[in-house]
Amino acid sequence: MTYCVALKVAAGMVFASDSRTNAGFDQISTFRKMMVYERPGDRFMVLLSAGNLSISQSIRELLQVERVSLDGSEPQTIWSTQTMFDAARILGHTMRRVNDMDGPALRAAGIDFASTLIFGGQIGNEAMRLFLVYSTGNFIEATPETCFFQIGEAKYGKPVLDRLLSPKTPLQDAAKCALLSMDSTLKSNVSVGLPIDLVVYQAGTLQSENLACIDASNPYFTMLRQSWSERLSAAFESLPNPLWDTTDAHPLRATSERYEVLRKIHNPGDKII
Amino acid sequence: MTYCVALKVAAGMVFASDSRTNAGFDQISTFRKMMVYERPGDRFMVLLSAGNLSISQSIRELLQVERVSLDGSEPQTIWSTQTMFDAARILGHTMRRVNDMDGPALRAAGIDFASTLIFGGQIGNEAMRLFLVYSTGNFIEATPETCFFQIGEAKYGKPVLDRLLSPKTPLQDAAKCALLSMDSTLKSNVSVGLPIDLVVYQAGTLQSENLACIDASNPYFTMLRQSWSERLSAAFESLPNPLWDTTDAHPLRATSERYEVLRKIHNPGDKII
Repeated sequence: MTYCVALKVAAGMVFASDSRTNAGFDQISTFRKMMVYERPGDRFMVLLSAGNLSISQSIRELLQVERVSLDGSEPQTIWSTQTMFDAARILGHTMRRVNDMDGPALRAAGIDFASTLIFGGQIGNEAMRLFLVYSTGNFIEATPETCFFQIGEAKYGKPVLDRLLSPKTPLQDAAKCALLSMDSTLKSNVSVGLPIDLVVYQAGTLQSENLACIDASNPYFTMLRQSWSERLSAAFESLPNPLWDTTDAHPLRATSERYEVLRKIHNPGDKII
Repeated sequence: MTYCVALKVAAGMVFASDSRTNAGFDQISTFRKMMVYERPGDRFMVLLSAGNLSISQSIRELLQVERVSLDGSEPQTIWSTQTMFDAARILGHTMRRVNDMDGPALRAAGIDFASTLIFGGQIGNEAMRLFLVYSTGNFIEATPETCFFQIGEAKYGKPVLDRLLSPKTPLQDAAKCALLSMDSTLKSNVSVGLPIDLVVYQAGTLQSENLACIDASNPYFTMLRQSWSERLSAAFESLPNPLWDTTDAHPLRATSERYEVLRKIHNPGDKII
């Protein structure tokens, strides 16, 4: 499977992706799911992909070689558009092109045209923008209320984001949060695997050198996973055990319960069917 | 949706279930998914159900009124079998009975016969046993390597179990762990809802008074959720931010990287397609 996550906070954006793909349980490979597009001082964009690998590879390729005419205007590419919105439209258009090319043959073989992309970044003076592009080529944008997108095996890594992330989170904390989300997913699903690609982008810089490809020997990630695990255990240990006695300060059983657990009790004299 | 979890540790067993059901997004109700069967001193068994509510209600009913002949021997019920294995077989048989009754009509309407059960407990001198029963009536048993089962919306609550639970976990810690797993699920999926039914069973006792039905005003659960959230945040804050400098003790970028992030850089003189 795949796990990719992108966060947009006020201070910048973070992108992370695993790199395990599987076509059946016995055909597992390493493929990178992140692509960075950068023209320093002009634009910085990142594409993450989940789903059918042939679709995402075709999309990446066509993005480099085909121009797209939006609304009948001058043909453009993601390198020439003036806004991230138009870049996302070009990406959606490219998705539809690949669907036109490969969709019918896939469907004839009973295979869904399944691909989901995260695309975010910044162009010129525009604000940073983060999009989730569906396989039908339409897309939604992240907002302050929902400042992250996940694709692929998203659920294991969501609780840590739900708890710890907000638009005010400092950028390096957001990066830490993305890595912990990745860690939870790696722990709970073996089909998500190292190396992890990580990009941290600071708002307004239109370039980044904070890129890392993290494998099992990465010193920071190894330390982070180990420390997080230890601190979670310590936090867990420090929580009071369930308090059954109603005289406790925080009893598990309220004295005036509205509900009771459904229970069939047989006593010694009861007839057994 | 539904989230149910059952843990078997050396010291005992813990069962927890939410109580929200939905038939479509606009038809949400409260139905309890846990049933306790107890004859003090003889047997203590708990059934958790996920999936189609009509199926699980029919199973519960038939378990109370029908005897099952296993291998052509004397008809029995879960109240009369000598082993948990036979009780699980009776449950599987009952599942198949309901499939025979309702399956054809459901399938004709394009609805899967979807139901999954967790069934665990202890009878007489036998060891505690914990089973996961599929909609086809067959079942698997928990082992020391995999000492918990989840049904329904399982993924959000799995990382905390993967991290914190082992067969050696003390019983009250296991209960705390089940509640935190429930908390993560409640936070990340609104279709899982209070009240939570919780049962904690100590090995060998063949009865339990540690039953609670936990709603939004429950003093212990409220304290637990709040404290866990605060301690996770504190643990998160205490972790070092990503260290990009290769002279750090634990740098994010190793000096000799095998991989690099895939990156297309356009420089000022480059031709743009």
